[in-house]
Amino acid sequence: MNILLTNDDGITAPGIAAAYKELFKLGSVTVVAPSDRMSGAGHSITVFEPLKCEKIKVAGLFEGFSVTGSPADCVKLALMEICPQRPDIVVSGINHGANVGINVYYSGTVAAAMEAAFYHVPAVALSYAFEEPCDFAAAAKYAVGTFDKVKNLSLSAVININIPRLSAGKPKGVKIVPQSTMGFAEHYIKQTAPDGTLLYQLTGGDHARADRWLYYGNDPRLRYDRL
Amino acid sequence: MNILLTNDDGITAPGIAAAYKELFKLGSVTVVAPSDRMSGAGHSITVFEPLKCEKIKVAGLFEGFSVTGSPADCVKLALMEICPQRPDIVVSGINHGANVGINVYYSGTVAAAMEAAFYHVPAVALSYAFEEPCDFAAAAKYAVGTFDKVKNLSLSAVININIPRLSAGKPKGVKIVPQSTMGFAEHYIKQTAPDGTLLYQLTGGDHARADRWLYYGNDPRLRYDRL
Repeated sequence: MNILLTNDDGITAPGIAAAYKELFKLGSVTVVAPSDRMSGAGHSITVFEPLKCEKIKVAGLFEGFSVTGSPADCVKLALMEICPQRPDIVVSGINHGANVGINVYYSGTVAAAMEAAFYHVPAVALSYAFEEPCDFAAAAKYAVGTFDKVKNLSLSAVININIPRLSAGKPKGVKIVPQSTMGFAEHYIKQTAPDGTLLYQLTGGDHARADRWLYYGNDPRLRYDRL
Repeated sequence: MNILLTNDDGITAPGIAAAYKELFKLGSVTVVAPSDRMSGAGHSITVFEPLKCEKIKVAGLFEGFSVTGSPADCVKLALMEICPQRPDIVVSGINHGANVGINVYYSGTVAAAMEAAFYHVPAVALSYAFEEPCDFAAAAKYAVGTFDKVKNLSLSAVININIPRLSAGKPKGVKIVPQSTMGFAEHYIKQTAPDGTLLYQLTGGDHARADRWLYYGNDPRLRYDRL
């Protein structure tokens, strides 16, 4: 099996190393991932400047291509220029933090999997509910163990696998559901810089809030999506 | 009518000024737009640093809020912090270059309209097929003239209006169609930097290519979307 591995936390993040260790057991793994952390990158791509691409050795574990772009850039570049042959699957992650609800639109992890789907390559996004410390090794083992359950689906859909906090015990099982786009409780922290510039830091987003939909009224005709 | 206006070419781009001039005739316009050009921003948002927000005067025409973030950041910040009241409509553009086919996933212009939809605010993305010179004033007049035709739709969908090259003559009319995600003929130009680093510049994308779907095989079961 030929596997293309990417992520949005950056090529040196612990989540991608843990994924590599498990995927290496399944076949040949090509790693093409962002040089820097790209959380919130969504489906952005780099259009005004060239992507810099360097082969680097990561944590004595793998040689991979470090790319100065977004996760979607990495997948596009890998499929068009780097991969020696068509991958059988693209895996994106493991992201540190769940990618659930409306967050799938902002997620670089999920966008990388979508980019693969544009080229008809089956794709899986992997995300692990945020906790510290975070046992990525256990998460990777668990996530790759679910591949058998989703492999038939991944020909026609992007699979977004979210691994629950494993510190809470063994998950009860795997449930395949349509993607929700439920909102989050988020807000801005407003500050003033020394030069008088207003600064707004986005925060929150940890907890799903059904009433996010009510933020601007609760007319059901206005509901964008609700699963 | 309360209108929120943004774009992805940046607050000083000619397309947003032309849109302002037309929208100003319809009601009160609040402009919240990126400080820099953000083409290809997709639905990225800024999570690791605060957005800087400055009120600036643009081209002697309007006062607007210049934000160091993506188009989606601008809409989120505007709806949560800046707009004095709920906008009746969010307008994003006019983008210099069409946003058609698969490009809607990469487009900051379209993402801004989608972000508005997350908050149940009717939203319209405006893009003008690339040409030089580009008569944004005529494009703005034409685009705003189509609003009557789409205003009922915009409660339940994001409207992505593409204005054809007006140098080719008056458009034949307005056709409302589902969004295509047809691919483009794109490729990378590979170069080597003086220090040996590989550089890849994405290019192409001007012309729709039905065979983009054949890039990795033509099994119809693998077609991601085709309208």
